[in-house]
Amino acid sequence: MIEPREILLGHGSGGRMGRQLIEEVFLRAFGGSESFAPDAAALDFPQGPGKLAFTTDSFVVDPLFFPGGDIGKLAVCGTVNDLAASGARPLYLSAGFIIEEGFPLADLMAVVRSMAQTARAAGVRVVCGDTKVVDRGKCDKLFINTAGVGWLSEALAGLGSGKAIRPGDLLLLNGPIAEHGMAVMAAREGMAASAELVSDCAPLGGLVEELLRAAPRTRFLRDATRGGLSAVVVELAEGLGLGIELEEEAIPLGQAARGLCEAFGFDPLYVANEGKMVAVVPPEEAPAALEALRGHPLGRQAALIGAVTAEHPGRVLLRTAIGGIRVVDLPAGRQLPRIC
Amino acid sequence: MIEPREILLGHGSGGRMGRQLIEEVFLRAFGGSESFAPDAAALDFPQGPGKLAFTTDSFVVDPLFFPGGDIGKLAVCGTVNDLAASGARPLYLSAGFIIEEGFPLADLMAVVRSMAQTARAAGVRVVCGDTKVVDRGKCDKLFINTAGVGWLSEALAGLGSGKAIRPGDLLLLNGPIAEHGMAVMAAREGMAASAELVSDCAPLGGLVEELLRAAPRTRFLRDATRGGLSAVVVELAEGLGLGIELEEEAIPLGQAARGLCEAFGFDPLYVANEGKMVAVVPPEEAPAALEALRGHPLGRQAALIGAVTAEHPGRVLLRTAIGGIRVVDLPAGRQLPRIC
Repeated sequence: MIEPREILLGHGSGGRMGRQLIEEVFLRAFGGSESFAPDAAALDFPQGPGKLAFTTDSFVVDPLFFPGGDIGKLAVCGTVNDLAASGARPLYLSAGFIIEEGFPLADLMAVVRSMAQTARAAGVRVVCGDTKVVDRGKCDKLFINTAGVGWLSEALAGLGSGKAIRPGDLLLLNGPIAEHGMAVMAAREGMAASAELVSDCAPLGGLVEELLRAAPRTRFLRDATRGGLSAVVVELAEGLGLGIELEEEAIPLGQAARGLCEAFGFDPLYVANEGKMVAVVPPEEAPAALEALRGHPLGRQAALIGAVTAEHPGRVLLRTAIGGIRVVDLPAGRQLPRIC
Repeated sequence: MIEPREILLGHGSGGRMGRQLIEEVFLRAFGGSESFAPDAAALDFPQGPGKLAFTTDSFVVDPLFFPGGDIGKLAVCGTVNDLAASGARPLYLSAGFIIEEGFPLADLMAVVRSMAQTARAAGVRVVCGDTKVVDRGKCDKLFINTAGVGWLSEALAGLGSGKAIRPGDLLLLNGPIAEHGMAVMAAREGMAASAELVSDCAPLGGLVEELLRAAPRTRFLRDATRGGLSAVVVELAEGLGLGIELEEEAIPLGQAARGLCEAFGFDPLYVANEGKMVAVVPPEEAPAALEALRGHPLGRQAALIGAVTAEHPGRVLLRTAIGGIRVVDLPAGRQLPRIC
């Protein structure tokens, strides 16, 4: 067993302590019957027409553990969901750890186990990693980077750009918004237990597979993380020069998240999610798409939330619950720092 | 132009400021005629028999700029060299940035330009990225993670394990050791100008290609980074249960690095390199391998530094300049923190 019970600078030095950490923490969690490489991993990649999808995300969430997840689960879900949103089948993840000297070994092991467990649930393998240790006070506990590789079929290669979107297409969402951001916020403020809110943090590869099977002409997918639902729809409208109309009443929002948003003064449209996917589908496939989403455990509350229009190009309008119309813009600057 | 001239929390928020940062800093440097994706990139991958090589490294070097390089150049070289050492042709890099609030925009742009320039020199593309901003004092200026994807031919797929190594095989090194670690150390102590030492930080993909052409039966490659030359040879000997003998006088070591090691009390065998590759070759290919290394700009001072033996299995012995014999072990713990 590693002694002492906290991370020291020596664990990042490339010497015996570093090797021990790799063997006892990372190999044990990620190794299994398959290989985990401290250096480059050599992996099978599907043959035949298709692309390699490649993405990366760093995670600096504070606190590291929050209702519904932790930084490790988040790091796996975030990268898996980026791949899934591009239309790719997620295959492999890398994991880079930047650890503050003095970080409890037990916490590191809990995070790594959570990553391994989430990876198994998502059907991906964590195949390579790296550990750096910095002096006390030079980083905040633990940061994780995950990069992900997936296989993207030729048929789905255009999904990421949204260029196939046409006026009349419909926007679907797989469930209630603002739960991740508000759960982390509540945990940070020490009110987690009272808030009854858990992060929606989940890997969406399986949900996307079901959706694409039911609605093969799906035009576009994007997971609504930092910047919330608003960032996805505004970037889409601006990027394509098309209008988008959202129905406020149709956008799922739970009581607990709504209450916390009101208490803290946040607009739920701008709050981060970690298990929500926006899908744009042609109208004729919308019923099947919605049924497929609702048939999946991570899409029970899926809803049709809006439509693409040729009107007001580049702008997103929200029809509010009381009958008004509001322009939705990107958040100008900071909303919630260190939410992912 | 981005105003103000330093990074704010809002640049990491997924809103308009974050998008502006991506467009004006990252897309400008990494975009070129090709695409750089803030989310998942869709990329061509070679067809035919071969493996996908995947690796990751985080970089926390302090200071960010040092003689011979900077954290950006380092981040590209480190990951490219991991791929090259596995026998893979480096193809694509991801880039994840964790930035401290208040970090000067000019420094970020200098680092990103350096990454782009090094990537071009190394023949790889930076294809996807991510930016997180943390509050002042919660990280030290800038950390970078790079993950890398390469293509590994079937013929070279065993190179990373070293399992083909036999007693009698010879160890080559492409040049003088300890230059990266000591250059960073000197810069940290404010004695960079007087030390006349620059980091050896360089992408070694081209050098490895030349080597493998000249010595196609090369058994093993490993870049000697954290833990220095000693970490590579000790892990190899222990991993294979074979002995290794090194000749101290044959190991290239420059005057400036030697002087600094003596001044600071470091053993150059344990000091990090960022442009040094250890190659194990069968004796009949050693002359051609050495000639190929010396014919490359990054291998002018390449040398035969030792041999694999069936004696003292699992141990590395160093024949010292004065005729003694010393056991080389892994560094037990910390040597130089935040050297890469």
